[in-house]
Amino acid sequence: MPSVSANLSAAMSEAAAQVADALERILPKSEFPESKLFEAMRYGALNGGKRLRPFLVMSSARIFGVGDECALRAAAAVECVHCYSLVHDDLPAMDNSDLRRGSPTVHKKYDEATAILAGDALLTIAFEILADPRTHEDPQVRCKLVTALAKASGVHGMVGGQMLDLIAETTSLDIGAITRLQRMKTGELIAVSTEAGAILGKASQQHHNALRAYAHDLGLAFQIIDDLLDAEGTEEETGKPVQRDAVAGKATFVTILGADRARNQAKLLSEQAIGHLAVFGGRAKHLEDVARFVVDRKS
Amino acid sequence: MPSVSANLSAAMSEAAAQVADALERILPKSEFPESKLFEAMRYGALNGGKRLRPFLVMSSARIFGVGDECALRAAAAVECVHCYSLVHDDLPAMDNSDLRRGSPTVHKKYDEATAILAGDALLTIAFEILADPRTHEDPQVRCKLVTALAKASGVHGMVGGQMLDLIAETTSLDIGAITRLQRMKTGELIAVSTEAGAILGKASQQHHNALRAYAHDLGLAFQIIDDLLDAEGTEEETGKPVQRDAVAGKATFVTILGADRARNQAKLLSEQAIGHLAVFGGRAKHLEDVARFVVDRKS
Repeated sequence: MPSVSANLSAAMSEAAAQVADALERILPKSEFPESKLFEAMRYGALNGGKRLRPFLVMSSARIFGVGDECALRAAAAVECVHCYSLVHDDLPAMDNSDLRRGSPTVHKKYDEATAILAGDALLTIAFEILADPRTHEDPQVRCKLVTALAKASGVHGMVGGQMLDLIAETTSLDIGAITRLQRMKTGELIAVSTEAGAILGKASQQHHNALRAYAHDLGLAFQIIDDLLDAEGTEEETGKPVQRDAVAGKATFVTILGADRARNQAKLLSEQAIGHLAVFGGRAKHLEDVARFVVDRKS
Repeated sequence: MPSVSANLSAAMSEAAAQVADALERILPKSEFPESKLFEAMRYGALNGGKRLRPFLVMSSARIFGVGDECALRAAAAVECVHCYSLVHDDLPAMDNSDLRRGSPTVHKKYDEATAILAGDALLTIAFEILADPRTHEDPQVRCKLVTALAKASGVHGMVGGQMLDLIAETTSLDIGAITRLQRMKTGELIAVSTEAGAILGKASQQHHNALRAYAHDLGLAFQIIDDLLDAEGTEEETGKPVQRDAVAGKATFVTILGADRARNQAKLLSEQAIGHLAVFGGRAKHLEDVARFVVDRKS
């Protein structure tokens, strides 16, 4: 009998392939002169990746019996926002990264202007996908998805967190400020990924709350491990430059807590996240497995 | 009795003040550490401007008896998209402009990273505004607004047009290609501005079509005059650098048609635009005036 992690790994791979296929279908493709932009969008959205957020959307949607196509479209929308954020974060004026998942970043493969526009276009198409009747027959549900994704990725979520991250390069932050930064920068998009399933499934408030609590703990655990991989991993393992925080002299969970306490904290958060899923009986198995995977991952 | 243009000017000023007030209310404001981002958003969205697109939203909404607050919110959303596009277009990797409406551009006033994020945030908040129940009680209407704005500003609209514009710097375009470029780059957002009023007012297909035809002619006339102002205006008059097309060796309506034929073409398009409004009897007076204003403007 395969181990839990082999099961999860198979499920995540299958979901990743489905999302890549959905993005392949949804993203524009043409012979127009501007097709370089379409290529750059595809390059930014289809170059692999764990597809963690889509997997969360699909896993939470499954709890509520949401149809596959609806879940997949919502998952694709969230992934478009995630990928746009990577494209813009990698720009020279931001993190100035040449490498992402072992390949040249979008502005290195194309150019800076094309990368800015491809990011803009990926963000825009995310909302187009969500507002489309194929995502859900009920327009109230579609509006809630748009609202949730916009809030999670806007100034009080991801973009605000990225701003804080830039400020952190020149200001020393305490653990409270770092926690707030990370909740905004990565936590809110992870939270909206699980929330999307609940919105699609018209879940009760109790279930919404449970998923939100789960996602917040998961997001923080995810980020702590990210910091650990940056501090301890190699470029070969992670597919991106490492020790960037140390070079930038940036405060992270690892620099403040130390590697051991940080790892323990991530494990505690993972267990706590799983605890929030008790309300679903055994129906949130994939989400439980994700919480374990997130702290064990090597990239 | 004041002239048509004095009436229009007063109406546009009033609408511009209302939109600025709505944006002032809607855009985030806080004492958080990331408030530099909020300031940059406000700076990019509240530094004056003609507010042509919001005026179109409000004028078309009025034809269908849409409530002021609904029209104003939709107008603010369209203006957020317009302003985000200016912030990103001005970036060094794009048009590299230091001056906008006589003031430093966002990346000059703040920095490049902040400008990228402020643009991202303005785009994101536009969809948050539209999906909010305060914009319209019917979620079907709100979804249609989100869809229309996303399509108009995405790869088949504004962002695609901007890509074509960058390509045009190194490729020579014929009049057909320039027309397509401009319809995408500026025409689609102008079209969705009039369409928003029709969507809010649940207008008939015939009325939708009339407004779309009007907006397409208006958008092209607007762009031809823009090219003329770039070729013949001064920095003092227009509030931005001029003769950029000539310096870049870029084909425009003016370089291809010559100034006189271009001006005549704009006038013809303006008259044609007004012709499409016949179906509304006298109820589209403001839109008629706008079509006249657009070809007479000096900035």
